[in-house]
Amino acid sequence: MNADPRSGLLELGFDVPAFVGMDEGEIQTPCLILDLDALERNIAKLGAYAKAHGMRHRAHGKMHKSVDILKLQQSLGGAVGACCQKVSEAEVFVRGGINDILISNQIRDPLKIDRLARLPASGARITVCVDDIANVADLSAAAGRHGTTLECFVEIDCGAGRCGVGSPEEAVALAIAIDGAQGLTFSGLQAYHGGGQHVEDFAARKARMDSAATITRAAVEALTAAGLKPGIVSGGGTGSYTFEATSHVFNELQCGSYAFMDAAYGRVRAGNGQRFDHGEWENALFVLTSVMSHARPGRAVCDAGLKSQSLDSGLPVIYGREDVTFIECNDEHGVISDPEGALKINEKLRLVPGHCDPTCNLHDWYVGVRGGKVEVVWPVSARGKIY
Amino acid sequence: MNADPRSGLLELGFDVPAFVGMDEGEIQTPCLILDLDALERNIAKLGAYAKAHGMRHRAHGKMHKSVDILKLQQSLGGAVGACCQKVSEAEVFVRGGINDILISNQIRDPLKIDRLARLPASGARITVCVDDIANVADLSAAAGRHGTTLECFVEIDCGAGRCGVGSPEEAVALAIAIDGAQGLTFSGLQAYHGGGQHVEDFAARKARMDSAATITRAAVEALTAAGLKPGIVSGGGTGSYTFEATSHVFNELQCGSYAFMDAAYGRVRAGNGQRFDHGEWENALFVLTSVMSHARPGRAVCDAGLKSQSLDSGLPVIYGREDVTFIECNDEHGVISDPEGALKINEKLRLVPGHCDPTCNLHDWYVGVRGGKVEVVWPVSARGKIY
Repeated sequence: MNADPRSGLLELGFDVPAFVGMDEGEIQTPCLILDLDALERNIAKLGAYAKAHGMRHRAHGKMHKSVDILKLQQSLGGAVGACCQKVSEAEVFVRGGINDILISNQIRDPLKIDRLARLPASGARITVCVDDIANVADLSAAAGRHGTTLECFVEIDCGAGRCGVGSPEEAVALAIAIDGAQGLTFSGLQAYHGGGQHVEDFAARKARMDSAATITRAAVEALTAAGLKPGIVSGGGTGSYTFEATSHVFNELQCGSYAFMDAAYGRVRAGNGQRFDHGEWENALFVLTSVMSHARPGRAVCDAGLKSQSLDSGLPVIYGREDVTFIECNDEHGVISDPEGALKINEKLRLVPGHCDPTCNLHDWYVGVRGGKVEVVWPVSARGKIY
Repeated sequence: MNADPRSGLLELGFDVPAFVGMDEGEIQTPCLILDLDALERNIAKLGAYAKAHGMRHRAHGKMHKSVDILKLQQSLGGAVGACCQKVSEAEVFVRGGINDILISNQIRDPLKIDRLARLPASGARITVCVDDIANVADLSAAAGRHGTTLECFVEIDCGAGRCGVGSPEEAVALAIAIDGAQGLTFSGLQAYHGGGQHVEDFAARKARMDSAATITRAAVEALTAAGLKPGIVSGGGTGSYTFEATSHVFNELQCGSYAFMDAAYGRVRAGNGQRFDHGEWENALFVLTSVMSHARPGRAVCDAGLKSQSLDSGLPVIYGREDVTFIECNDEHGVISDPEGALKINEKLRLVPGHCDPTCNLHDWYVGVRGGKVEVVWPVSARGKIY
C-alpha cells in the first residue's frame, strides 16, 4: 500500500472522520454516524403526527446542534422553527438560516442579553423564556438599544421543579409586565416537564403529564381572564408529546430526541407496553467504534470512551449484537465483554449512546450513511456553544 | 448602558468566554477557569518531586489537551515531553512545538497508523505502545513508507485488565519482534495501572501498586535476560506516582491530573491520611457558572449542565461554600440546594468538576485568572481530537 493521501490531509488538521463516498468500514472512529433512512423516517413520522393533531412542531436543536438536521426537520417534518437553550446556539442557527427560534431558557447575564437583543435585526423571529419579573426591564432595555423586538414566553413550573414561576398569579403578573414593556411582546407560555420525559412506565409518565397539563391549563385560564390569552402554549418532549398533543391545552411541541433516539429513551414504554426502540422510533444515531486491543481472551477494548459519549444515563448498548456487551468506559477506552472471542482487531461496532444530547455535543461531525456508503458529512454546527 | 461592543464580536462567532484584562465577574459562563497561582504551584511541586527522585516526568496531555499548559509543565516543572492517547492529539502537540510525544495507547487502524508514521518527519520523537505482535508489521510498513522511525513501548497489563500483554514471555516476544522490524525501535515498557489511581484508601492503593511494580519488575528482568533491557519504564498517575517513584523499577512518570485536580482525586487519601485536596494538591481548575433562575425559594438553577462538565465520577462540588450544594445536573442546567436563599441572580460560583479530563474536553477555552483579573485565554488545543 502506498502512503494514503488522506492521512496527509488529516495530519494537517483537516480532521474529519470520513469523506463522502467512503465505505462505512473505512470511517475513522470513534465518531457519530447517522443512519439516514432511519433519521428521515423518524422525522417524517413526528411531522405527520403533529400535523394530524393540529400541533406546531418546533424542533429542539439543543439535541443535535445541527443546522443541516434542523433544515431536514423543516422540509421533511414540517417543523415551524427551532428551540435551543443558549444565545450562542441561537446565533449559529440564525447564521445558518433558521428564522424562528425559541430560546427555551432564561437569559440573565448582561452581555448575553445584549447578544440576544441583536439577533432579531437579522430578520429572525426570536423568543425567550422569562420566569422573573426583574428580567423584563433588562430585556426591554437591550431591545431598545438595538431597536429590535423580542418575543417572550412566560415559563411556568409544571412539575419539574427547575425553572418557571409557581402559580397562575405570578404568570399573570409576569405577562402584564412583558406586555407593558417597550420592545417586548408577550406571545406564549413555556410549560416543559423535563423530569417526566424518561419515566419508563407509561401510566406513571401519563400521571405526571396529566398533572402538568392541569397546571398549564390553570395558567392559560388565568392569563385569558386577564386579557392576555397566550397565542402559543409550548412544551412536550419525546417522552411526553402524545400527552400534550391530546391535552387540548398545548398547541406547540418541542421534541428533539425522537429524531436520533438513545438507550435511555429506548427503555421508555409506549402505551401498548412496547419499548420506544421497538416500533415507536428507530435508532438513527450511533457512536461508531473500532476494536483496538484484545490482549485478554474474554475482553476486547474499543476506542470509544468518555470523550466520545456521555455516561450520565448509563453505558451504551452495542447495536445488533447479543454476543458482546459494553461493560466499562474509561476516558478513551471502552471495555467489552467478549466471552466467545468473536471480536477482531479493527472490527467496527455501532454503539447506541445512553443519552444523545451530551453525546452529540462531544463531536464535531455527523457522518450520514446509506447503503454502506458515506453520503454526507455534516458539522455539529453549535457544538460547544454553551454561552 | 450603551450596546456592548463585545457582544457584537461574540455574535459574529468569535465565541470566547473572556477577554484578557476582564474582571473575573464579567467572564461569560459556563466556562473553564484556571487559578494560575495554584496551577503554577502544582506544576512546580511535581517537577521538584520528580527531580528529587531521579524520575523523568512526561506530562499527560490527554488531561488538559493544551499546548500552552504542556509548555508550562516543561518550563516550570521540567517535564521531558508529553503523553497523549490519540494520533490526532499528537498531531496538535507536534504542530504546537512539543517534540517528544508518547502515544500511551495502541494504534491499529491503517489510516491512523499512516498518520502516526508521518509525525517523526517533523523532527519530533514519537513513541507508541504495542500489545499485539500483529501490530508490529503494520507500524514497520508505515514507517518504511514515510522513511521515519517510530519508537515502541511494549505495554504490559500490570493489573488494570485493559490493554497490555499478560506475561513476561509475551513482552519478550513482542520486544524481539519490534527490535527486528525496519523503522521501529524498542525503547521501553508501558506499565500504567489506570484502575488503581482513584482507590481512596492509601493502603489499598499501595497494595495494588506494589503488585503492579512486581509484575513490571518481572517483565523488566525477562527483557534484560533476553538482551533487551528497556531504556524507559513508564507509568504512574496522580494517584500512584509516589509508589512508582520509590519502586526502583520505573524511571518515568505520566501524571496529568495533579496540575488541575478534581473532586474525585480530592477524595483520595495521601499516606498521612489527608485528602488529596487538603495539602497535597490545590484545586486549580473550576467550571465557572452563574445563577440564572431562582423561581423556587430553596433551589437555585445555574447555567452549567452536562455539556459543561462530565458526571462520570459524580456531581461537582461548589468550591468554598458550605451553605449551598449542587444536587442535580441536567443538559444545560445545574440545580443547587440553597436552603437559606443566599444566591442571587448572576452570582458566580466555582465548581470543582467530578473528573477533569472529560470535563476539559467539553470546552474550547481556558480562562486563566490571577488577582481577580483575566490574565490569559488559552485554547483547549486538542479538544475533540478523538481519532
